[in-house]
Amino acid sequence: MLDPSPSVTSNSRIAVIGSGAVGCYYGGRLAQAGCDVRFHVRRDLEHVRQHGLTIKSHLGDFQLPRVQAFGSTQEMGAADLVIITLKATANNALDALIPPLLHAGTKLLTLQNGLGNEEYLAARWGAARVLGGVCFTCINRTGPGLIDHIAQGPIALGPLVAGSTDAARAVCELLNRCSVECEFSDSIPALRWKKLVWNIAFNGLSILGGGLDTARILADPALHRLARSLMREVIGISCHLGFPLDESFIDNQIEATETMSAYRSSSMIDFVEGREVEVEAIWGEPWRQAVAAGAEAGRLEMVYHLIRSAVGNAAGDFSSHG
Amino acid sequence: MLDPSPSVTSNSRIAVIGSGAVGCYYGGRLAQAGCDVRFHVRRDLEHVRQHGLTIKSHLGDFQLPRVQAFGSTQEMGAADLVIITLKATANNALDALIPPLLHAGTKLLTLQNGLGNEEYLAARWGAARVLGGVCFTCINRTGPGLIDHIAQGPIALGPLVAGSTDAARAVCELLNRCSVECEFSDSIPALRWKKLVWNIAFNGLSILGGGLDTARILADPALHRLARSLMREVIGISCHLGFPLDESFIDNQIEATETMSAYRSSSMIDFVEGREVEVEAIWGEPWRQAVAAGAEAGRLEMVYHLIRSAVGNAAGDFSSHG
Repeated sequence: MLDPSPSVTSNSRIAVIGSGAVGCYYGGRLAQAGCDVRFHVRRDLEHVRQHGLTIKSHLGDFQLPRVQAFGSTQEMGAADLVIITLKATANNALDALIPPLLHAGTKLLTLQNGLGNEEYLAARWGAARVLGGVCFTCINRTGPGLIDHIAQGPIALGPLVAGSTDAARAVCELLNRCSVECEFSDSIPALRWKKLVWNIAFNGLSILGGGLDTARILADPALHRLARSLMREVIGISCHLGFPLDESFIDNQIEATETMSAYRSSSMIDFVEGREVEVEAIWGEPWRQAVAAGAEAGRLEMVYHLIRSAVGNAAGDFSSHG
Repeated sequence: MLDPSPSVTSNSRIAVIGSGAVGCYYGGRLAQAGCDVRFHVRRDLEHVRQHGLTIKSHLGDFQLPRVQAFGSTQEMGAADLVIITLKATANNALDALIPPLLHAGTKLLTLQNGLGNEEYLAARWGAARVLGGVCFTCINRTGPGLIDHIAQGPIALGPLVAGSTDAARAVCELLNRCSVECEFSDSIPALRWKKLVWNIAFNGLSILGGGLDTARILADPALHRLARSLMREVIGISCHLGFPLDESFIDNQIEATETMSAYRSSSMIDFVEGREVEVEAIWGEPWRQAVAAGAEAGRLEMVYHLIRSAVGNAAGDFSSHG
């Protein structure tokens, strides 16, 4: 079953690290299509072992009455593809979780938020293993083993270095065969900045507004205006860094957000439930890259520092980025 | 007693409109020195009539057991100088309050916060009457008739039009004779922007931080940094508009703020007590002027829109500016 070649196929063994909403949904789609998917589950382990996963999706509901759920990666054994959907604030946990999953050809695909995750993996296990992807999707965990996939769903992914291009294309094909729309990209940073346009604005305002869903942000004229001006600034930074994005993407994203109705961003849920917020991945590292490049980032700076102050962990999650 | 000449002297009749912390302190200093000062008092009228004013000041405490306190400006009669210390959000109340106080030579001195107040007065009662001043001071009302003057105290003021220069100089001299340090300026906008450097940053962060005093803003590294970058942006706007200010003013203002210990800005008190916040005078009008002039104002825009959203009166106090 183990496949040391760079190609990932339906016969490959797939490990999912971070079985929250995103990990369970995409891992679930792969399992639904018959792939050998092994989930590392921290919260809800016993529940998932007994009842599997129940996935409500606007693209079609499905149930997985039996899933391979593990409490440690030692029990999971080596995998051909490791999909990482852990919160970026918990990256230091990967130092112990990843090694048992590795064989010579194992690829590591991070679907995490923000900047810095590919670099974290590459520094420890080599750039050649690393694939990076972004999910343009709205998924919430609504209870133990219960996932609600509300809107959208496509993934875009690519290799960190050119040598892994074939592997990235193979993962793309596999996902497409498993009912996950996936697009290949040869520029992870371009993907990251494209997704940050939404995350910086909407995750940010959802926290600074005191815990607001997307509908309430769009309904408040001041916040709606701020969302647009933040998106415009992030597009400017992306262009400045060499990843062109057209300003028409703002209207596109506002329209997409209108279809989400009252979506609670992951950062907003983390914030209101008192859990660590991905401050550095979503706002801190993008701000530092903008400043280093001399791009105008006054609005992002405001959001970043206000959120750092609001979450009261100014140093906490930054240190976990090494 | 009434003096229709442009010169304001110790024999002039002075009316104070808006007997909050600032009005009671400066009006109190004039009364302490023997001037004929008449206070228009809304809250605490009976208490002030019976017990006068008790003023705790770092420049020397004093008591005024008997003050001339009125519930209407009709009873007060015409005055030579009207000192306006009403909240900028209540300017439309001036339409009824001011006319009974006017004779041909009456001057109107606004010591209110932010931009737009001189223009409000000039549009109704003529630019020749209008003097504008800013108070560099920390004063809180601590109870009925109780004023706590915590730090600083100087006023700077000037005429709105050159024809009132002598009157402005006369008010300056009067204040200086009455233990209020006062400096003449021939540019009200330069004064306004100088004071906005502090108000935009500290009043803003005191609200966005959820009701923070100055000590807590300075103690939070993220907010301290934001305060500095906001001040830097406001200085940039001021320079862009033709009112030069050196960046060393930032350190100067941070040091001044350190002497205030745990000062609660007026906006912060308004915010936590659910009263109207001077959103448009302090952030809205400055932001619009910056945008109209093409100055970089991304941080100010963020603060303005977030505060508009936080106070939930996006349209309310703007309309009162006419």
